[in-house]
Amino acid sequence: MSASQAREAASPLQLCRIMRPDDANIVGNVHGGIILKMIEEAGCIVGTRHCNTQSGDRGVAALVRVEKTEFLFPVFIGEVAHVTAEITYTSKHSLEVQVKVMAENILTGAKKLANKAALWYVPCSLQNVDKIMQVPPIKYASAEQEEEGKKRYEAQKMERLETKARIEEVVPPPPNPEQHTVGFSQSSLIHLVGPSDCTLHHYVHGGVTMKLMDEVAGIVAARHCNTNIVTASVDAINFHRKINKGCVVTVTGRMTFASNKSMEIEVLVDASPLMEKGKEKYRAVSAFFTFISLDKDNRPLPVPPLKIDGEEEQRRFEEGKARYLHNKAKRLADKEAAAHQN
Amino acid sequence: MSASQAREAASPLQLCRIMRPDDANIVGNVHGGIILKMIEEAGCIVGTRHCNTQSGDRGVAALVRVEKTEFLFPVFIGEVAHVTAEITYTSKHSLEVQVKVMAENILTGAKKLANKAALWYVPCSLQNVDKIMQVPPIKYASAEQEEEGKKRYEAQKMERLETKARIEEVVPPPPNPEQHTVGFSQSSLIHLVGPSDCTLHHYVHGGVTMKLMDEVAGIVAARHCNTNIVTASVDAINFHRKINKGCVVTVTGRMTFASNKSMEIEVLVDASPLMEKGKEKYRAVSAFFTFISLDKDNRPLPVPPLKIDGEEEQRRFEEGKARYLHNKAKRLADKEAAAHQN
Amino acid sequence: MSASQAREAASPLQLCRIMRPDDANIVGNVHGGIILKMIEEAGCIVGTRHCNTQSGDRGVAALVRVEKTEFLFPVFIGEVAHVTAEITYTSKHSLEVQVKVMAENILTGAKKLANKAALWYVPCSLQNVDKIMQVPPIKYASAEQEEEGKKRYEAQKMERLETKARIEEVVPPPPNPEQHTVGFSQSSLIHLVGPSDCTLHHYVHGGVTMKLMDEVAGIVAARHCNTNIVTASVDAINFHRKINKGCVVTVTGRMTFASNKSMEIEVLVDASPLMEKGKEKYRAVSAFFTFISLDKDNRPLPVPPLKIDGEEEQRRFEEGKARYLHNKAKRLADKEAAAHQN
Repeated sequence: MSASQAREAASPLQLCRIMRPDDANIVGNVHGGIILKMIEEAGCIVGTRHCNTQSGDRGVAALVRVEKTEFLFPVFIGEVAHVTAEITYTSKHSLEVQVKVMAENILTGAKKLANKAALWYVPCSLQNVDKIMQVPPIKYASAEQEEEGKKRYEAQKMERLETKARIEEVVPPPPNPEQHTVGFSQSSLIHLVGPSDCTLHHYVHGGVTMKLMDEVAGIVAARHCNTNIVTASVDAINFHRKINKGCVVTVTGRMTFASNKSMEIEVLVDASPLMEKGKEKYRAVSAFFTFISLDKDNRPLPVPPLKIDGEEEQRRFEEGKARYLHNKAKRLADKEAAAHQN
Repeated sequence: MSASQAREAASPLQLCRIMRPDDANIVGNVHGGIILKMIEEAGCIVGTRHCNTQSGDRGVAALVRVEKTEFLFPVFIGEVAHVTAEITYTSKHSLEVQVKVMAENILTGAKKLANKAALWYVPCSLQNVDKIMQVPPIKYASAEQEEEGKKRYEAQKMERLETKARIEEVVPPPPNPEQHTVGFSQSSLIHLVGPSDCTLHHYVHGGVTMKLMDEVAGIVAARHCNTNIVTASVDAINFHRKINKGCVVTVTGRMTFASNKSMEIEVLVDASPLMEKGKEKYRAVSAFFTFISLDKDNRPLPVPPLKIDGEEEQRRFEEGKARYLHNKAKRLADKEAAAHQN
Repeated sequence: MSASQAREAASPLQLCRIMRPDDANIVGNVHGGIILKMIEEAGCIVGTRHCNTQSGDRGVAALVRVEKTEFLFPVFIGEVAHVTAEITYTSKHSLEVQVKVMAENILTGAKKLANKAALWYVPCSLQNVDKIMQVPPIKYASAEQEEEGKKRYEAQKMERLETKARIEEVVPPPPNPEQHTVGFSQSSLIHLVGPSDCTLHHYVHGGVTMKLMDEVAGIVAARHCNTNIVTASVDAINFHRKINKGCVVTVTGRMTFASNKSMEIEVLVDASPLMEKGKEKYRAVSAFFTFISLDKDNRPLPVPPLKIDGEEEQRRFEEGKARYLHNKAKRLADKEAAAHQN
């Protein structure tokens, strides 16, 4: 590799696109899933490019984890979303990409930070997808920067080891469920994996899966409130198993918890190979999405309480509440820390 | 209206498009739903254009019925599908469009007739979508031609009056269903209606709905046989109720009957307005799709028998069998009639 | 506008995307129309952003002309296309955007210059689309740079004044045309303008129109040679009239000239408002596309001679030949000039 190639491999990648009507809901808010898909595309490009700056097998960066992501500002039709992705840490077999999304209104010049995300990739060899390639090290601006990256790496590694895919079964809702119950808003979509879902190898891009997950979660939220809803945040997602071309994926969303201002929806992704006899359906990913309800001026609306039925739902509600309180406390602590720094 | 406009309105419409990878399944067969969507787009354009050649309200041709449609030859990625649509009959408030699909292999020059369809449209006023506009009469080449059109018109009118939307409930399959049972292959998808799904008056194009129906039916068929499956035919479809922007549609397919060479799948489409409180879910369309299973050389494969459980499934199986035998007899009669004519 | 906004408005815009299977033909070559659409999107963003750095009406940069564009290298599925757009000249009411497309193979690190283009935009007020807004002046690096921009501006202005839209009628081909005649490969497609075709106002983006034109021209070329064909160049295109939402566009391609290595295809775009009575179909754009035929190793193949029938075809053939010889001479002269400079 030439010196200029190495410099480039480490340099950030910029990607932008005008948001179209098809990217948004009927009041013009761009779906969170569209943003997640763009983020992952940028991460995949910058990661794949970096891993191929060495000799040996060619490989593709496969998404294994997305850290908790907050949607800071809604994006609208006609705005330009600018996505910047940069490799911020490399371990022997994985790399971290940090991504920032700015939304620009090109009619007024106004800009806002819409999103920040951190993604972890591992390079899979194209010759043998089960082989994880080595990742060429990046250069850090300072020893401190490397040290912090290492901490993030250790933390996510621990979490990935501890967190198994949620193996809970999807139970179909009872017939004629009452409004505001879990069964009332539970929704499933199925999607037949197409060629454009898996461009570089024969596996579905993580971004495609996240877009489907956000779509189902949004339908669950809208069914619960009958208002305009938007993605507020997504908890860390671990991509346990790859989804192959020729699979049909079933994406199910069910509400686990609602505070008076937000809803937590658990999304479970199951893949089943359509044309391979005897191959069983398997759980590929699971995640928790948080949605909020907005009025026509984009101000938060109260969320109807979630009616709980049975022990299982009660347990999931308590767990969701714990996550909600934990996140709330963390946000407060972060705010205070920031205030002290100033 | 100028003379040239009148000529244009009455003249057939030609539309063509290269079939792309995303239009097809993994072995390269273009989905029947893609063809149905193209057919309906051509019909909608030719119908809308014709209905606006008069003064008064502007309107959009809304699909109310598709006659039984046979898929004669599979279409492949890279082929060009040519769709020709022509208005063949007009009553006071409706019009018939006949559509032909030729598939052309542009590498070899080979052409084949892939599909023929007949669609009925009524013009809805843009000022008030519940108002049906009058249809300007077309000129017929002969009195005989008009007479035949009138017969087709009367026949479909009678059938539409007689046929109610199937009101049968969708029952979720039991947990862990046995292979080759109805519950094993039953599938549902949900789709949030987007701007590109809708016509100029904010209602879902009939072709978009048919594409979703074919998609679900195809997944049901593939789950039953685990082979490459293709749409063989679609029974007449009546579009009872319009689907509005901002709805979520649930499309469910379940196998009703299987002969040793084909599968009949009932597809039920339910719409629920997401943001209008108190508006109930309603059945918008229902239809029967027939699929066949093909080997890698596109030759028919035997279909595993359908395991029936319970009275309801038995009744649907008998009804499906009756339709199957009726269609088979009709095909034979048509063939003989054709032979006698020659 | 703040100082930082002004700096940004003048700074180049970067846009990139992985090429997907749907962007390409069956041998994996990305369609020229996909590249043209990306180029125009980048130009529209950078132009619209610049024109809104002043106070007064908000406006959108509408494409009025694309200079002759050469496709230097084919782009493939899986490659990342990087589009860089920069404003290079501003007159009182128009601006020039120069765009460069680099294709990067992220598996090998290889990069190639795929395309260079120059586009002219005028800003239309959103309050009144028939009002052309003033364009804020850019700063030039040198007086020479400004002088050269002015020359390009004058040259294109003259050409736009001289060049009328080709008013030639589209004549349907005869039934059963002989192979390699003009009628044999002539093709038309129609497209109903949808919301995502016109994101920022109610008019179709120039890039959407160019994509459709390239699609039809590609079908004409493939029908003539029955081989893998790619876009080699597009002659300057003037966008005479805007195309409104709710129109149906008919795009027709017919071969005008073939040398032993290339084919010239004339593409005519007609728009007809579907629902406005009395509004006639009108010619919106016309252009000449040049295609070449490639073997499986992407080497040029000979093109079958075009069989000419009648005076009209003969006249168009002679005109096409003149353009072909003129372009060839110009390429040679450019090459020599470049050689002399070194």
